[in-house]
Amino acid sequence: MTKHPAARRDPGYLGLTRSVAALPASDYFDAAHYERELGRIWYRNWLYVGRSSEVREARSFRTFSIGTQSVVIVRGEDQQVRAFHNTCRHRGAALCQAAEGRFPPAGIVCPYHAWRYSLKGELLQTTSKQLPDDFEPRDLGLYGLPVTEWNGCIFVSLSDHPPAFAKNFDLPLNRLDAWHMDRLAVGHRSRKTIACNWKVFWENYNECLHCPGVHPKLAQLVPLFGRALLEPKDDPHWQDHATDQDPRFRGGLRAGATSWTMDGQPVGVPFPDLSAEDRKSGHVYLTGLPSIFIVGHVDYMRIVRILPLGPELTEMSIEYLFLPESLEAKRNIASAVEFTQTVMGEDAQICEVNQRGLHALAHARGVLMPEEYVIQQFQDWVRAELARP
Amino acid sequence: MTKHPAARRDPGYLGLTRSVAALPASDYFDAAHYERELGRIWYRNWLYVGRSSEVREARSFRTFSIGTQSVVIVRGEDQQVRAFHNTCRHRGAALCQAAEGRFPPAGIVCPYHAWRYSLKGELLQTTSKQLPDDFEPRDLGLYGLPVTEWNGCIFVSLSDHPPAFAKNFDLPLNRLDAWHMDRLAVGHRSRKTIACNWKVFWENYNECLHCPGVHPKLAQLVPLFGRALLEPKDDPHWQDHATDQDPRFRGGLRAGATSWTMDGQPVGVPFPDLSAEDRKSGHVYLTGLPSIFIVGHVDYMRIVRILPLGPELTEMSIEYLFLPESLEAKRNIASAVEFTQTVMGEDAQICEVNQRGLHALAHARGVLMPEEYVIQQFQDWVRAELARP
Amino acid sequence: MTKHPAARRDPGYLGLTRSVAALPASDYFDAAHYERELGRIWYRNWLYVGRSSEVREARSFRTFSIGTQSVVIVRGEDQQVRAFHNTCRHRGAALCQAAEGRFPPAGIVCPYHAWRYSLKGELLQTTSKQLPDDFEPRDLGLYGLPVTEWNGCIFVSLSDHPPAFAKNFDLPLNRLDAWHMDRLAVGHRSRKTIACNWKVFWENYNECLHCPGVHPKLAQLVPLFGRALLEPKDDPHWQDHATDQDPRFRGGLRAGATSWTMDGQPVGVPFPDLSAEDRKSGHVYLTGLPSIFIVGHVDYMRIVRILPLGPELTEMSIEYLFLPESLEAKRNIASAVEFTQTVMGEDAQICEVNQRGLHALAHARGVLMPEEYVIQQFQDWVRAELARP
Repeated sequence: MTKHPAARRDPGYLGLTRSVAALPASDYFDAAHYERELGRIWYRNWLYVGRSSEVREARSFRTFSIGTQSVVIVRGEDQQVRAFHNTCRHRGAALCQAAEGRFPPAGIVCPYHAWRYSLKGELLQTTSKQLPDDFEPRDLGLYGLPVTEWNGCIFVSLSDHPPAFAKNFDLPLNRLDAWHMDRLAVGHRSRKTIACNWKVFWENYNECLHCPGVHPKLAQLVPLFGRALLEPKDDPHWQDHATDQDPRFRGGLRAGATSWTMDGQPVGVPFPDLSAEDRKSGHVYLTGLPSIFIVGHVDYMRIVRILPLGPELTEMSIEYLFLPESLEAKRNIASAVEFTQTVMGEDAQICEVNQRGLHALAHARGVLMPEEYVIQQFQDWVRAELARP
Repeated sequence: MTKHPAARRDPGYLGLTRSVAALPASDYFDAAHYERELGRIWYRNWLYVGRSSEVREARSFRTFSIGTQSVVIVRGEDQQVRAFHNTCRHRGAALCQAAEGRFPPAGIVCPYHAWRYSLKGELLQTTSKQLPDDFEPRDLGLYGLPVTEWNGCIFVSLSDHPPAFAKNFDLPLNRLDAWHMDRLAVGHRSRKTIACNWKVFWENYNECLHCPGVHPKLAQLVPLFGRALLEPKDDPHWQDHATDQDPRFRGGLRAGATSWTMDGQPVGVPFPDLSAEDRKSGHVYLTGLPSIFIVGHVDYMRIVRILPLGPELTEMSIEYLFLPESLEAKRNIASAVEFTQTVMGEDAQICEVNQRGLHALAHARGVLMPEEYVIQQFQDWVRAELARP
Repeated sequence: MTKHPAARRDPGYLGLTRSVAALPASDYFDAAHYERELGRIWYRNWLYVGRSSEVREARSFRTFSIGTQSVVIVRGEDQQVRAFHNTCRHRGAALCQAAEGRFPPAGIVCPYHAWRYSLKGELLQTTSKQLPDDFEPRDLGLYGLPVTEWNGCIFVSLSDHPPAFAKNFDLPLNRLDAWHMDRLAVGHRSRKTIACNWKVFWENYNECLHCPGVHPKLAQLVPLFGRALLEPKDDPHWQDHATDQDPRFRGGLRAGATSWTMDGQPVGVPFPDLSAEDRKSGHVYLTGLPSIFIVGHVDYMRIVRILPLGPELTEMSIEYLFLPESLEAKRNIASAVEFTQTVMGEDAQICEVNQRGLHALAHARGVLMPEEYVIQQFQDWVRAELARP
């Protein structure tokens, strides 16, 4: 293999022009580094918990775990969603043992010594015969955590000073408004454990160089992906086909297909308010590092949640959202689920292949190629997060 | 919840009058701290091994494990019980593989190279053709450990300088003399692994604030416990009922009950020498931190042994002791076992609930309430043990 | 036991005359020390991978794992065997998922982004549309590792600067030439996991003090071993029997036996070129620390490979080699396999006994006895390896 001749690149080209050193390989398996990332990235940023509909009724709760932390999410009588550490202020017992449920009207009662808290977290009652002279109930409310409810999705942060919520996403918060996410219903859920570091997952998500080899069905459905590109301007000579309407060059689905399903045909009732452009594209991605990406298709949406379980173990959960009428009509949505399970299963498998090779003593770090400019952005974000005081 | 008005407390009140900060939450799960506790608490103090009857005959042995340590307990031809590290002085092989057994008259023979030791630990023989010129058999006896036999119970210490044996207990060593423990026989044994730090177990043991909610049967049997109190003077207004003979105020068992069994009726032959007071009380507790507590009832005793298995894992073993005639008569003791298994099972479960909540990032430590003054004493003891040079 | 009188020893005596302190006990279980040994001993020295016949054809490969490292061994079109880290230079994916297989004529293709390498490790192709301006394919070949093929055995080193290959062995490289190992075929394979540190295995290998007690069958077959000696001059009074032809004194097999089998009779076609002395001895050992020893018998050979799996876990793999005609004739080799499995199974079990005793707090280290002079050499080697910069 010899070097190419001096490279020609069209203006507006998005790719890297020089090779870029990737993160140190040990950052993907070293246990101490993993603890640092938990503290600086996962315990600071907004994390996707689940759908608002899971705590629809007043007093209903669910728990959410990340690393060693357990959080209770509860909807108050005032309809506000609140989050607390799942820990009693007395001697630290876990308040909720169940994954979900509903608190009684009396509030949250610790199963150990029956300390009672309001749904706003205020300490209402202890069971001691008499309080200590210096006892200040106001100082002993539940440990509250920031919560945001957005588009029917609940997010929580483990930090008292989380970043601004909008900063969590790569596109404006209103980018998916046409889907009216808060009205959608979950038609299917799946969960998978992947033997890789959480960053390996995101790096795989951020490039399509692997698409032709790893995703044969997807490469057919989205011909631009089949060319190993995420965007038309990832091609250094994109101008050669600037006006070509072939989806190989402009993006979007193959001729005849309108949704991400096994045969390209929609399975749900199409969303009525999508723009012609979004309909043509067939998919709009919104990414909220480190825990979520959302994809809008013409007839369904996907929410994919990522959680680290260990230095080399990651959990991926997928929710499939439809218009309620799609589910009420008992439409057969299997073709959408099967397509996504195929593609995400391929991703999971290749992420494990990537992880397995990272330990080599001689492998200090990888190299990012031109099409991997979004990985560079991701790694810059990781570095910046770790450098924050 | 608002503060109570200025507190009134009767003289002699035992509870705390100001709130007390509990140990740091991380002391209950941090692996390095756990190692420190093994070294400074568990490998120093007297630990309950088991009943003398388990090594009744000369030359009979049993092994005992704590943390990474394995100890051999053996009764000599002179009837003395001795303890040794289960390790050969030659190249460190484990001497005994079985949990119990009997050594041959020749003594203790290492299974690796057949070094032979007397039951007093003296090196009697090697298998080398010739000894090294500087060989000193007296320097190569088994590693001996302090042992105490008391009331038919064997205790061992992993330290050359253990504390005085009597200091191990919260009451005088003769407090249980009326039970003649050394003559009793084991009628039942149980063992359970609890997913909690060992200190969580002892803190739960040291308060009854949790009794009404966690132990409905026990709260009925011992009405004072049903009021969340361990002692009458844990009530700040105990003088209001100073002469009241209702067990709700004076302690002891509910009317009509005489033992800790499902229906309150004794299952074993009652111990003949108990004082009227001990009989009335229904239970006398003797505690030997960190590994044992003993309870004397009117017709049976319980020995509960605690051993740490990991930062968040603890083993609890229970022996039920009866007069030999109770067992010879094949009395049905199930009602005593079932009662205790119910209560200790509830304790085990709530200890796991306590442990699960301790990891919350915001939870630096808990707070001790007035009724938890014995926990304060326990935590002071832990701090003092850890501070010893 | 009292000290022997002043020791008399014949000239030429091989044993130790003074007792020698063994390695610190914690070196056999401490996790940090284990990591140090991986880095300084296992990742530096030559390690036995397997037989050349496993990659006989051009382009055939197999993978080999040691600690966290995975290596690909491949035979080139030029018949050369080469070794590479099982890692792509791009983003570190594992190249080979299978334990063995054959590469296509195109070369080695990474399953992630299809980077393609020659069997010599040169980068031949990427899949990027255009290369970065500073891209140097010559800098991005596979990570090559030193390989040696010797006597039909493949060895690899994880270090760029491995020791000279011959230095790996305790005897000259030509010591086993009469067996023509490269022509032999594998008649049986076994693998066993032993719960001991890898050094415990080698120390057990390096002495026969344990033979009478641990290996009753072997002690019968090799009467000198039955006397707990490896060599005649391990006896301080060897001159008393200097000319005695009894195998109890001169070594070799018991009268009537010619091979290491259950009944002492050979099971394979005898090797035609052995010297009379080697035939009489019945076994010739060649040791290549830290991963291999080879034994030549009159009718079969054994290759025993040792790999560390953890501080207290070791893998032992055994290959039984025969003349091809032995296997073609479908001779019953079970008696050889059974004999070795018996002896090595006894070794595995006693190694686990040794390991279990090493944790005792009081046991700083063991003591080496006169017959254990080869263990002293082994421990000196370990110390020297760990001290290398």
